[in-house]
Amino acid sequence: MNQEYPITSLQETALLMNNAKLAFPKFQAIPDNSKADFLDRIAFEIEALGEELLQTTMQETNLPLARLTGERGRTTMQLRMFAQMLRDGHWVEATIDHAIADKTPPKPDIRKMLVGIGPVVVFGASNFPYAYSTAGGDTASALAAGCPVVVKAHPAHLKTSQLVAGAIQKATIFCQMPEHVFQHTASDSFETGKALVQDPNTSAVGFTGSYSGGRALYDYAAVRKNPIPVFSEMGSTNPVLLLPDALSKNASSIAKQYAGSINLGVGQFCTNPGILLGIASEGLNEFIDQLGAEMNAVAPATMLHKGILVAYENKSAKALAHASVSQKTLQTSASDIQQANPILATVSGEVFIQDALLQEEVFGPFALVVQCKDLNELITAWQAITGQLTTTLMGTDQDFANHLGLLQMAPYIAGRVLFNGVPTGVEVCPSMVHGGPFPASTDGRFTAVGINAVKRWVRPVSFQNCPAHLLPAALQEENPLGILRMVDGKYQI
Amino acid sequence: MNQEYPITSLQETALLMNNAKLAFPKFQAIPDNSKADFLDRIAFEIEALGEELLQTTMQETNLPLARLTGERGRTTMQLRMFAQMLRDGHWVEATIDHAIADKTPPKPDIRKMLVGIGPVVVFGASNFPYAYSTAGGDTASALAAGCPVVVKAHPAHLKTSQLVAGAIQKATIFCQMPEHVFQHTASDSFETGKALVQDPNTSAVGFTGSYSGGRALYDYAAVRKNPIPVFSEMGSTNPVLLLPDALSKNASSIAKQYAGSINLGVGQFCTNPGILLGIASEGLNEFIDQLGAEMNAVAPATMLHKGILVAYENKSAKALAHASVSQKTLQTSASDIQQANPILATVSGEVFIQDALLQEEVFGPFALVVQCKDLNELITAWQAITGQLTTTLMGTDQDFANHLGLLQMAPYIAGRVLFNGVPTGVEVCPSMVHGGPFPASTDGRFTAVGINAVKRWVRPVSFQNCPAHLLPAALQEENPLGILRMVDGKYQI
Repeated sequence: MNQEYPITSLQETALLMNNAKLAFPKFQAIPDNSKADFLDRIAFEIEALGEELLQTTMQETNLPLARLTGERGRTTMQLRMFAQMLRDGHWVEATIDHAIADKTPPKPDIRKMLVGIGPVVVFGASNFPYAYSTAGGDTASALAAGCPVVVKAHPAHLKTSQLVAGAIQKATIFCQMPEHVFQHTASDSFETGKALVQDPNTSAVGFTGSYSGGRALYDYAAVRKNPIPVFSEMGSTNPVLLLPDALSKNASSIAKQYAGSINLGVGQFCTNPGILLGIASEGLNEFIDQLGAEMNAVAPATMLHKGILVAYENKSAKALAHASVSQKTLQTSASDIQQANPILATVSGEVFIQDALLQEEVFGPFALVVQCKDLNELITAWQAITGQLTTTLMGTDQDFANHLGLLQMAPYIAGRVLFNGVPTGVEVCPSMVHGGPFPASTDGRFTAVGINAVKRWVRPVSFQNCPAHLLPAALQEENPLGILRMVDGKYQI
Repeated sequence: MNQEYPITSLQETALLMNNAKLAFPKFQAIPDNSKADFLDRIAFEIEALGEELLQTTMQETNLPLARLTGERGRTTMQLRMFAQMLRDGHWVEATIDHAIADKTPPKPDIRKMLVGIGPVVVFGASNFPYAYSTAGGDTASALAAGCPVVVKAHPAHLKTSQLVAGAIQKATIFCQMPEHVFQHTASDSFETGKALVQDPNTSAVGFTGSYSGGRALYDYAAVRKNPIPVFSEMGSTNPVLLLPDALSKNASSIAKQYAGSINLGVGQFCTNPGILLGIASEGLNEFIDQLGAEMNAVAPATMLHKGILVAYENKSAKALAHASVSQKTLQTSASDIQQANPILATVSGEVFIQDALLQEEVFGPFALVVQCKDLNELITAWQAITGQLTTTLMGTDQDFANHLGLLQMAPYIAGRVLFNGVPTGVEVCPSMVHGGPFPASTDGRFTAVGINAVKRWVRPVSFQNCPAHLLPAALQEENPLGILRMVDGKYQI
């Protein structure tokens, strides 16, 4: 459990990926029920780490115990969710078309299902040391697909990552899984990351973090001799539309609601609402005043690590330095070098539309209210920041009736459209989309949360005229797994 | 119908894509039933072109009338298949998770479905002037997803492309579809293709053709400010394993079957079996002799265009120039400058494994038999050419019982695994996978054939706490479309 993982050199990277390649066919051959037991056992072993894990992570991340306890619960829940998905068995998208001998030419028997794509490299997130890290959603979904996983530990919580890796190792042995279905490297060198993405035995990459990091991995993969999918979940400003009737009636309560969301976890969520757009009005002024007052009342808090705080200070300072940007929160001097001050700023729609800098994410408790002169300017500003994880419409029934066009546009701005809520808080369920058009993620056709996250690590394979006794269980005529299948064009459960 | 399309300058490219961008929200707002009528009408208008279309394509492509008539039928069938998919409605993958108010924190109502990704650029194939070209599978599936399409005509059948584009235009007007849901450019400049892929308003790209072309488009897209998915369906050698018992019993009949497949359509299919692997034996010798004799009896035939013939001659000559490669067909002098001679060659497994040149596709009626010294060498040779559209196992029940390991490996070599058949002939049905790991295609997670081809042009969107009366029909509580949905984790039809 406390074993030391050596710093991985580039040679060791090649060894890790070769191990993963050799483990892949063995892992693919294991029945889904056994893989499910393995995922359940990982959850069990993580829980068995008990206080040691929580205390270690508190020290490494400055995150409070309640939050970490909750996140640990989410992580084990995700592992068990993928176990259940494997037991249900529907996920392979089994499809059968029977032969038609008297067709010209004769139609063969064809059957299709999903199989694992190959070894997956996972880069964990600093802001989710459990749920999007070593045994987080990427690892759980890739293991569910039967893909060996190599995790590059996040240097900001290395000890946490090592503890969790040890738990997975225990589960691997307990469940008699093939050696090397899970491997872990503690190297924090830039070159290791690049080498992992570009190793010929790597089949896909999962990443959660900054735009610059996610884009770099995407670029490394794209110039490979054989490019591979990279699923980077990157930044997002999560634009919120404050519609006129809602502002005129509920400015104050919306401001209170958003003060909570903007400052949740010191603003360190990828779904943090960073840009709020409204049409200039008394209601919008009231909203700004109230939100500013609420944010002034929020105590500065400690960020995950120094690097994130420095980036927050630099990026917010750049935005505030803009001649047309007004700060609406008080300039306080930080009481502690590690703490971040909540910041609210405003800018006109006209300036916002023309300045790409203002459209960028400031990771942390920062929000920019864009004061638009009319609906057209609001739409233009909103569409200028397409490529988001979420977008939210705050409106009354009257607002929605008056602005049906906005509702039609919303699905093309973001992967998740919210009505009268806050984007922070990502429910783990099949209908969740955590992803979105670039740059929210590198491939908006997929989600990083929920059982469909497994779809990132699979590919379909057809079997044509395969002898019946050689077919995988999911494709056998009598449907021994009892799964949903499309048969001759019709769905059958 | 005979209108002239101007050569498109780069300015015109930007105009085309801006038109497509403006058409996108309008097209997305159209109900699936109306889009279905539109696809049906395109099929009708293509049929209405009658003899003029067939004669034009014969002149442009050298393909015989029977083949073109069949391919036209396949093309209109594909359009009607996507129309039916839209009427069935299941394709949007509707998923609903109901709110749970007493959960901590309360679980919101979340509903998910697929929507179109945005404007799609399609590059048609020279070898399928109808089915993978102007109104082919890429265009039909993208229109089904509600994505406006811009087709860059293949210069080898420009007049055909213009006729089909005219038919789509007629259907657009007849069905009162938004202007610019389909556009066509006759420009054959390299710069136009690049500009189309890199235009900021392009959301995805479909391509069928050579490795060099498909890879170039992928690379153009990868270096965009916002990278977009490129679905290039490229070359494939479609390796065939000739297993020992089958060879000892059926060498001659397999040779006859494969002579037909190798020479079908002058070998100009992406599923053409170009590499056949067997273990050195009397049976394999008999197979080679018989296949050589069969291929000598095939008359040289005219290829699609001069460029393809030149490439065929150059690539086959390179392979034959290899000191360790033996030609098994007669060296005939071509009777016509446009005609291709069928060529059969052999090489040892050892040489094949070490020479990447021999592993490359020779597009045309060329086959290379790889004579392996044992099963291990056969496996090594097979795995050296991973990344295929298809792979085929020719074997008896005895062979399969003896070589279960090969069956387990096959799904990781190719998108389609065939048993005792030939890979040419791609059935259009839901279970078909036409795609495969790189370099068969740029994204093996998708298929270019069958209704699932639509999945290339869509992305999922979640709606959180959307007022019931504002939900899209697919997500309304009472399921007015009567479609398959996952509700609270369970599938319901």
